[in-house]
Amino acid sequence: MKVYDFKGFPNPARVRIAIAEKGLTSRVEFVQVDLPGGAHRTPEFLAKNPSGAVPVLELDDGTTISECTAITEYLDHLDGEPTLTGRTGKERAIIHMMQRRTEVELMDALGTYFHHATPGLGEKIELYQNREWGERSLKRGIAGLHYLNQVLSGQPYLAGDSFSMVDITAFAGLSLADFLKIEVPETLTNLKDWRARVGARPSVAAA
Amino acid sequence: MKVYDFKGFPNPARVRIAIAEKGLTSRVEFVQVDLPGGAHRTPEFLAKNPSGAVPVLELDDGTTISECTAITEYLDHLDGEPTLTGRTGKERAIIHMMQRRTEVELMDALGTYFHHATPGLGEKIELYQNREWGERSLKRGIAGLHYLNQVLSGQPYLAGDSFSMVDITAFAGLSLADFLKIEVPETLTNLKDWRARVGARPSVAAA
Repeated sequence: MKVYDFKGFPNPARVRIAIAEKGLTSRVEFVQVDLPGGAHRTPEFLAKNPSGAVPVLELDDGTTISECTAITEYLDHLDGEPTLTGRTGKERAIIHMMQRRTEVELMDALGTYFHHATPGLGEKIELYQNREWGERSLKRGIAGLHYLNQVLSGQPYLAGDSFSMVDITAFAGLSLADFLKIEVPETLTNLKDWRARVGARPSVAAA
Repeated sequence: MKVYDFKGFPNPARVRIAIAEKGLTSRVEFVQVDLPGGAHRTPEFLAKNPSGAVPVLELDDGTTISECTAITEYLDHLDGEPTLTGRTGKERAIIHMMQRRTEVELMDALGTYFHHATPGLGEKIELYQNREWGERSLKRGIAGLHYLNQVLSGQPYLAGDSFSMVDITAFAGLSLADFLKIEVPETLTNLKDWRARVGARPSVAAA
């Protein structure tokens, strides 16, 4: 299988971490997509993902899967430890609940800030910006950090006792915060401890 | 199990449809939450769902699950036909990819229009509005309708040959469009045919 990738961006990193966690790195061909050159806007790439975003997983039968949660579902069902999307219905439900919250309240919020209240990907790409909404989204993202810190007050990982795809999503969200020079408040000690613990995993350190 | 519900809103309808599809209606106690009276803003309800939104599924052990995708994952893993979240890894991946696209491009887009460019839930609830972003979100939602119509040009349901949770999400999105008096363009014939087909399912007709 192939993964259309771009180093340094948070969503492709999420999939690289999931692949490494599942021990699948040697089975994947990574294809770098020249985003600064606009390679994600070509008809050829848009046929793979109409959203024009990386990462995209391409199976050997030609099926293309985009959206990190969906790609992680595929990889996780190839078997192997750890389980990133849960074993039982209850585990799966909690993981998908926290995944959606982390995407909406952290990743999407900070992404909207980036595209609307900073130069983003540059004036040739950012043809419409709504600065007020971008600033508002930054506040939402910071509230998201506080929420995640609170979740971690009673459990070691964001969906409970075990590492899951939610931890990957939030770790990538914190990398995006770093890139945007948003400081994680010093008071969020649960989040800082969790980040150190997750960052020490070989899969994450290598991404 | 209990479901905290509110009749007439699109997200609670999604979960009622999923419950009916799985034949679980008699096993669920539905609890109506007085949204116009602000019952979703009480500390008691926020402890069940910090987002303050319905629906919420409460299991007999007290665990609370919010977010429609997560609730549907739980219900689907109680077994029974049809399968709403897929059987194989590939089916699961395609369903989650289409679910995310349908949520972002249709449900969330129209929801943002409702809360930001219409009176929404009223001035006591809508304490911040960004009309320009709301209008932009409406355009995005209409583009989402065109995208879904295109997906349906080659397959009977939004994730392929079988009905899935994605069809429930999109059907609820079209109900929201009706409520907002947004007309589905006449040219979107695949979407109209699909809507008639899905609307004829007993689970949907009863919701």
